[in-house]
Amino acid sequence: MPRTIPVVENILNANDQLAAANQARLETNRVLGVNILASPGAGKTSLILRTITALSSQLHLAVLEGDTASVTIDADKISALGVPAVQINTGGQCHLDAKMVQAALAQFDLKILDCLIVENVGNLICTADFRLGTHINVLIASIPEGDDKPYKYPAIYRGVDALIINKIDLLPYVPFNLDYFQLGVEALNPGLVSFPLSCQTGEGLDKWISWLTRQIQKANSG
Amino acid sequence: MPRTIPVVENILNANDQLAAANQARLETNRVLGVNILASPGAGKTSLILRTITALSSQLHLAVLEGDTASVTIDADKISALGVPAVQINTGGQCHLDAKMVQAALAQFDLKILDCLIVENVGNLICTADFRLGTHINVLIASIPEGDDKPYKYPAIYRGVDALIINKIDLLPYVPFNLDYFQLGVEALNPGLVSFPLSCQTGEGLDKWISWLTRQIQKANSG
Repeated sequence: MPRTIPVVENILNANDQLAAANQARLETNRVLGVNILASPGAGKTSLILRTITALSSQLHLAVLEGDTASVTIDADKISALGVPAVQINTGGQCHLDAKMVQAALAQFDLKILDCLIVENVGNLICTADFRLGTHINVLIASIPEGDDKPYKYPAIYRGVDALIINKIDLLPYVPFNLDYFQLGVEALNPGLVSFPLSCQTGEGLDKWISWLTRQIQKANSG
Repeated sequence: MPRTIPVVENILNANDQLAAANQARLETNRVLGVNILASPGAGKTSLILRTITALSSQLHLAVLEGDTASVTIDADKISALGVPAVQINTGGQCHLDAKMVQAALAQFDLKILDCLIVENVGNLICTADFRLGTHINVLIASIPEGDDKPYKYPAIYRGVDALIINKIDLLPYVPFNLDYFQLGVEALNPGLVSFPLSCQTGEGLDKWISWLTRQIQKANSG
């Protein structure tokens, strides 16, 4: 459908401009923006809940929840931990965009925040194309999804700044060749920092928390 | 972005017309078209391989492989079982559409086929909107993805004709409330036929194979 391409390009340009404005607004307030990307059920909410539990006594966090439907399952879990959560219902759209994030930013008191975590819609394709204005894109891969995902969804692996390999507690029960997986990742995104962990058991979470804390401290003092 | 809506509507109308033409072409040749939908890593290819192994000695199957990248990992696995496989590289697009399927149909000898299985792109959102001309839409849910997926991705659950609940061998190792999951499914798609199974161990596959065989026989004699 070549006739639609100019429209798509215009949307992306407009989106990039809004994303830059969002980023500037976060930086004015010394807030680190973190965009969490994954397929459905890889553990986005679980990682965010674990991160809140580890950090919310020392740092001011908030969460922007992207969902394609109106259910507030995830936002409710986050609010229950005493952290501000704003839900964006994309109305069936398959990704967040910078305009949605811009509208949501108005609902947070950015001056007191250290880090805003954005939970994107569960999708490995469309989310890769839309900048939001966050500083760090974190992709969660999940062991039971299989070891071939970098080869099949290369675009999203190319564009991220950190990789969580979640559900490592399931490694004994599913076929997953870690070398093959990492070879694929390395070809797409050489040197990408990665954190094998389990949000279920807590194994490996400390390294992710330390790394994220350093990124937040850099943004706060920058 | 309201200005884009008319374009999207036109695309969908054009797609529906092509989908109807694809379906008529399959029916002229008494071929059952089956569209397999799931998030990345839920087990689309594994289910197709299991289905081929069970049925290819009695029935003529073929597979149309949708991928967002040029890798032929899945198509190669299917070809290795001696079944015709055609790959569609969507060039980063997040779903198959009827035009892509139309082009691929020309590459099969439909007269000798009983069933064409389409493996859609791994995506729970965008794939729900585009009819392909297949007769049956089958959604694969996966136990490690969690029990809240019907609540979070309602559109795709509403539009399918059968549900596979894959990776039941992982039930002892992950939190998954089957009652909560099934309550969500029932609210969206009352009476939906479902097949709990494991493509890894083979458990539960017989019921899926029997059901699919009956659908193929109906289409062949219809």
